[in-house]
Amino acid sequence: MPEPEQESVSRIITAGWVVTLNDDREVFSPGAVAIRGEEIAAVGPLADISRSHRSDQVLSYPDGLILPGLINAHTHAAMALFRGLADDLPLEDWLNSHIFPAERHLNRDFVYWGTKLAIAEMLLSGTTTFCDMYLFADAVARAAAETGIRAVVGEVLYDFPSPNYGPPAEGLRFSEELVRTYQGHPRVRVAVQPHAVYTCSPDLLQQSGELAAKLRVPLIMHLSETAKEVAYCRTSYGATPVKHLYNQGLLTRHLVADHAVVLTEEDMALLADSGAKVVHCPESNMKLASGIAPVTELLARGVPVGLGTDGCASNNNLDMFQEMDTAAKLQKVHHLDPTALPAAQALALATRRGAAVLGLEQEVGSLAPGLKADLVIIDLNQPHLTPMYDPYSHLVYAVGGGDVQTVLVHGRLLVQDRKLLAFDLEETLAKARELARRVKER
Amino acid sequence: MPEPEQESVSRIITAGWVVTLNDDREVFSPGAVAIRGEEIAAVGPLADISRSHRSDQVLSYPDGLILPGLINAHTHAAMALFRGLADDLPLEDWLNSHIFPAERHLNRDFVYWGTKLAIAEMLLSGTTTFCDMYLFADAVARAAAETGIRAVVGEVLYDFPSPNYGPPAEGLRFSEELVRTYQGHPRVRVAVQPHAVYTCSPDLLQQSGELAAKLRVPLIMHLSETAKEVAYCRTSYGATPVKHLYNQGLLTRHLVADHAVVLTEEDMALLADSGAKVVHCPESNMKLASGIAPVTELLARGVPVGLGTDGCASNNNLDMFQEMDTAAKLQKVHHLDPTALPAAQALALATRRGAAVLGLEQEVGSLAPGLKADLVIIDLNQPHLTPMYDPYSHLVYAVGGGDVQTVLVHGRLLVQDRKLLAFDLEETLAKARELARRVKER
Repeated sequence: MPEPEQESVSRIITAGWVVTLNDDREVFSPGAVAIRGEEIAAVGPLADISRSHRSDQVLSYPDGLILPGLINAHTHAAMALFRGLADDLPLEDWLNSHIFPAERHLNRDFVYWGTKLAIAEMLLSGTTTFCDMYLFADAVARAAAETGIRAVVGEVLYDFPSPNYGPPAEGLRFSEELVRTYQGHPRVRVAVQPHAVYTCSPDLLQQSGELAAKLRVPLIMHLSETAKEVAYCRTSYGATPVKHLYNQGLLTRHLVADHAVVLTEEDMALLADSGAKVVHCPESNMKLASGIAPVTELLARGVPVGLGTDGCASNNNLDMFQEMDTAAKLQKVHHLDPTALPAAQALALATRRGAAVLGLEQEVGSLAPGLKADLVIIDLNQPHLTPMYDPYSHLVYAVGGGDVQTVLVHGRLLVQDRKLLAFDLEETLAKARELARRVKER
Repeated sequence: MPEPEQESVSRIITAGWVVTLNDDREVFSPGAVAIRGEEIAAVGPLADISRSHRSDQVLSYPDGLILPGLINAHTHAAMALFRGLADDLPLEDWLNSHIFPAERHLNRDFVYWGTKLAIAEMLLSGTTTFCDMYLFADAVARAAAETGIRAVVGEVLYDFPSPNYGPPAEGLRFSEELVRTYQGHPRVRVAVQPHAVYTCSPDLLQQSGELAAKLRVPLIMHLSETAKEVAYCRTSYGATPVKHLYNQGLLTRHLVADHAVVLTEEDMALLADSGAKVVHCPESNMKLASGIAPVTELLARGVPVGLGTDGCASNNNLDMFQEMDTAAKLQKVHHLDPTALPAAQALALATRRGAAVLGLEQEVGSLAPGLKADLVIIDLNQPHLTPMYDPYSHLVYAVGGGDVQTVLVHGRLLVQDRKLLAFDLEETLAKARELARRVKER
């Protein structure tokens, strides 16, 4: 019998564990989340939520663990169609002989289906928000809007003609139009995304920064990914990439710097003072042999750091659980300190800190009333997750993307019991195979 | 219609891809494996096998990839019951305040059920052979024998009393008896396994070596895992751990050295000259911040290297697919060389090279006629595995343990369509929860 003072909500999800990542890092066992429309109405102990809320739609996961949806803060989603096309090669050979030639044939259709393929993988492995940089970003935005996932997208800008917008100047116009198209969209945001200091002239960077400021959107770019990039920048501009941006007035709290692997002491101080944000991509940095980003140092200086997989050509998956695991272990071995980047901190990079990096902290990244209902349920009833002493340790060191059972984004069920409900998976897989056949033929 | 010249076999498995890891590294697409009893009768293109063999038992996986069962060459299986008990701690605190106290309460029942829990995880993630070092190794052997997995087990030996065999001298007697008990067992082997140079006196090591030689079984031990171990050994014996074994005449081709992280040039030369084998455990070495083993150098010198997860308390899973991925990426970033430890080589570490390390190369590690039918089928019909350009790249960089569909060991189906057939999983999970409750109470 519903008690009279109970609040009616659209959905209640109960589970053996709820790991909130809220300001107090509360964990409830057993726990529940009450959802009203697209938002979280309440989170708490199961008994409390059962007393205070009622719903016709109750999902019960006694062997499940609810956590905030993961945030992949840097990827190139459509490169899912290039996964395994070329590996274990020197970076220049990989880029110049394999990736760039393949990308020359890109078109809107390829990016749309490649992005949908990646969205299927991301949703099924617990990622509910991704930040994308790629060509034909309008197709990325459309895929995100249609499928129900949350995204920050951006057209990649550089000094040479693009198969999408043509001459460089058109890239800025294209970006501005895309920002305006998605203004007010509940799940899709657009950022201005110049590629890097070695592919963008100071002029283009300057104009990108001005456009981002005018439109009040983030400026997102690869920064200090490799020693070679740093050497190039020193030779060309007499400064490290970070200092180069600083000199141009672009190192601000609106900047998101992807990778940030090769940094001087001064670079780290500048990043910290400016309020700029960083996205760490450990698996890509390892696979391309770029180096190990000074993540614990950046965190100690107060730099907001998120976590990303980078594209599938350099990872080669979009599994954020594996990425957290690798991030934590890599810092430990790098510093020869087993206490470096502990599990709870690694999980924060992939959730609330990632949200802060993308400017979405008022919407997602933790489970709290008023935030959007983006959440993931893990199936703990498996041998590799039994027993459980510590949910944080489990989530970072033992859980994999394949353990995701159910996923909600914006209050909507997109994955249930490992089945993708968001869109037609078979159609996307068939399209992916067909497009890959054409890549192989070339 | 069966053609008259067709050979009748007990089972035929067909798949979109067969990656053999045989001497010629053949890959067949589509391909098939014909199985007679416990052995592989034939491997080849689907059309050839269909012409030459017939069976009442045909399993077809048009979207599947068959590979040899993975070999986890170093673990402590029963520690699955300690997964997540203590993480992100300094090594001494972790061992002395958490792991050793928990292990003081070990008994045969705990080890038996802990090992079964680990076997469930291993089979479901594609591992068909594991090499174990732990207390109550008779319980480990029994679990392996009963469940159908392949194993090399050994009672851990050290200078202090054991909750199993009591005083140190009894450990050798216990080991000898265990070797004799399993002599001739089709799947379970026993090795002599002293713990390490810092827990075993030269006398105990000497006696262990003599016993292993007498019984013609491998001598397996942790070796040069940490800088602290090396420092201890230099102070105590005036030699590195490798040199210490060399001085004692124990550095032979019958030695399997687990970890081998901290090595001098002389150590590497001694290992190579002796024919001793090494097991690399990258995730454990990262998580415990032990360091990065010089794997590519060892391979270049011709040292046989296998791959292991180590125990669940320092990993925290037994997923060999993830371990291959990490192994490859860690060598790349360590050497700042993206060509280091390419995918095909990483896969070899987890299959044929691992078999050679354990002295099982005449039985398992690749798919070839006459070898035992230990094989794994991956479900490729998933977004994160579509499309596929290169099966090696996929297996190492994209596949996870959760993608394993079907597993055979010794010709017997132990996992089919992600269901464990080998034994009662629910009973094991219930036992694991009960035993963990007792660990928590202490």
